[in-house]
Amino acid sequence: MSANSVLLDFSLDPTRISDEVSRKDIVKICKEHLEKYLTGLKLIYDMLTDDGYLCILNAPGAVVITIRFFNQGLITINIEYYRAECEEPKISFEQTRELENGLVQILKLNHGQSLPALQRGPVTKYFPTADERVIEYDIDKVLYDKRSDFQKIQIVHSKSLGNMLVLDELQNIAEADLIYTETLMRRGVEDYKDKEICILGGGDGALLYELLKEKPKHVVMLEIDELVMDACNKYMNSICGDVLEKRKSSNYEIIVGDCMVYLNKYIKEKRKFDYVFGDLTDIPISDTPTGEIWDFIRTILEASFSVLKPTGKFMTHGNGVSCPESLRMYEAQLANLSSKVTFTKCTSFVPSFMEEWVFYQVQRESPAATEA
Amino acid sequence: MSANSVLLDFSLDPTRISDEVSRKDIVKICKEHLEKYLTGLKLIYDMLTDDGYLCILNAPGAVVITIRFFNQGLITINIEYYRAECEEPKISFEQTRELENGLVQILKLNHGQSLPALQRGPVTKYFPTADERVIEYDIDKVLYDKRSDFQKIQIVHSKSLGNMLVLDELQNIAEADLIYTETLMRRGVEDYKDKEICILGGGDGALLYELLKEKPKHVVMLEIDELVMDACNKYMNSICGDVLEKRKSSNYEIIVGDCMVYLNKYIKEKRKFDYVFGDLTDIPISDTPTGEIWDFIRTILEASFSVLKPTGKFMTHGNGVSCPESLRMYEAQLANLSSKVTFTKCTSFVPSFMEEWVFYQVQRESPAATEA
Repeated sequence: MSANSVLLDFSLDPTRISDEVSRKDIVKICKEHLEKYLTGLKLIYDMLTDDGYLCILNAPGAVVITIRFFNQGLITINIEYYRAECEEPKISFEQTRELENGLVQILKLNHGQSLPALQRGPVTKYFPTADERVIEYDIDKVLYDKRSDFQKIQIVHSKSLGNMLVLDELQNIAEADLIYTETLMRRGVEDYKDKEICILGGGDGALLYELLKEKPKHVVMLEIDELVMDACNKYMNSICGDVLEKRKSSNYEIIVGDCMVYLNKYIKEKRKFDYVFGDLTDIPISDTPTGEIWDFIRTILEASFSVLKPTGKFMTHGNGVSCPESLRMYEAQLANLSSKVTFTKCTSFVPSFMEEWVFYQVQRESPAATEA
Repeated sequence: MSANSVLLDFSLDPTRISDEVSRKDIVKICKEHLEKYLTGLKLIYDMLTDDGYLCILNAPGAVVITIRFFNQGLITINIEYYRAECEEPKISFEQTRELENGLVQILKLNHGQSLPALQRGPVTKYFPTADERVIEYDIDKVLYDKRSDFQKIQIVHSKSLGNMLVLDELQNIAEADLIYTETLMRRGVEDYKDKEICILGGGDGALLYELLKEKPKHVVMLEIDELVMDACNKYMNSICGDVLEKRKSSNYEIIVGDCMVYLNKYIKEKRKFDYVFGDLTDIPISDTPTGEIWDFIRTILEASFSVLKPTGKFMTHGNGVSCPESLRMYEAQLANLSSKVTFTKCTSFVPSFMEEWVFYQVQRESPAATEA
């Protein structure tokens, strides 16, 4: 079940909107055209707003149509109604486009735009890109929906991407995202054989699963949210195999806990790694490198370099290429670390993000000097 | 400039919606929460609808908020206002999510969903996938906007995809779409050297440009819409080079005209090709193979096989993998051709379509028999 919102908009000469006669005429013609698809329309309310005019029409079947005029030269039309699972739409996308083109032509409007009906209901289908564009996913089922002490955890099914982990309403990883993990670990470039590795986060298990295929000496994974692992172990086996089920083997261990607690423990013990993976929260896209999340990022980076061998590398995901400011800010953080570091980066198009993502590889500038 | 539409929706136990006391309480709490972000809210209208309740709130700055209750167990909230280019949003996506989560928790709702603000204005940013999902593109400029005798032609600029040709409000090809052309022609699989080729359509010039790199004997391209070629020649040179500018050379010729007229001419002349490319309108997604477009597809296929050498191939794009019905119908058309044919297909993810697309390679079942 869902409420359908069909949105159209038009731009036109602003003078035609402020003129009452012209406006009445436009509303009349809009109503006539709408009636081709939705019969029995009645005007039930109208008012002048601070920046134009608003009217509401009603059609049988509880179709509510809101038409709004903006003095700046815009008209928006929203058609909204309830649609049951098996029901045909009251106006198809083809008809919406026909309506749009009809109105543009008869009213000599400058521009028209119309969207496929948005579906509003209990299955979340819309997720944002890093630059806050809206993408509708082909999600047809919610498989898991729970709130842990740390976040809201959902696993949904996408027809094209397979099962997808959603954390706090953001798409995280899908079964189709092997490229994400392979780019994060730079498969084929980095050599993990016999190496000691620490994963911060990584609760979906995909990174651990892929790293183990490279025959490392040992991997320790520090994940705070047991519920994420339970959910992924149940619904994401194609990306995590049985690593979340087993939790421990001769060459890996998953520790449920705050990664900072364990990093501090390793610092004390002088335990060192060849690789540390930052597979925690994404870099925020806010404009200034302040606030809790940036503090967290700095703290994690400092601690990671304290447990890395002199030649060790810190590998992490950055942000969408659409957010250059956020990426620049992350790079500025790297420049301010107490260890002098250099970094490389690479990108890949991540299917479930629907965009190109940036990944970082960070290491000490002069390993020898540090070792001394 | 654009009107911003911020959409939220919630699902809940239907009995809480039909009960007037409970409903009043929900509206009161919604209003209180909305006021954290939008002060000075006033209820300006409300009514019972056939399937629930509708109320309209107004905040200074001409913010109009429509709250609708659906007896089936849904609440939708639309927040709409005009936003100038340089203006901050009146409610950010982060705040929208905060509002959503606040309401879900305090009202103990079953589910909440919120979308980044939709931008309604003179630059079209939303295009549909083959299965009519909405995708917001990072379009920042309209470079070309004209209506020819055949279609509406636009070239827009996307930050991630480069310039993009839009025909009748559907995304057609972008500068980032080399993979589209390479999959259509099966680069590396088919051998075009010294071959005779006919392109039906192909007005963006990309296919012709890429084919010429393979040293064919001759390519003739039959495109009806001169304006498409003018637009692409001006704004899409990275995909079409100078082939649309020159129009003719020793190894190719572009003919402006109806491809059926020329195909019939070639049939009469007994002119034959090694390859015919169908680079015309996409296969429609309607459920039944009737209507003008399907007739057109059948006619094109029959004529193409009449000008193909016995071993010749018909190469074309199909539809999104998300439209299996449409693909099956196309394949049914192939089975009904007067020549017995077999086909292969392959897919690729087309960046500007944001989905996996199917391409067909069709040839006669027994070339020898036909030749006899």
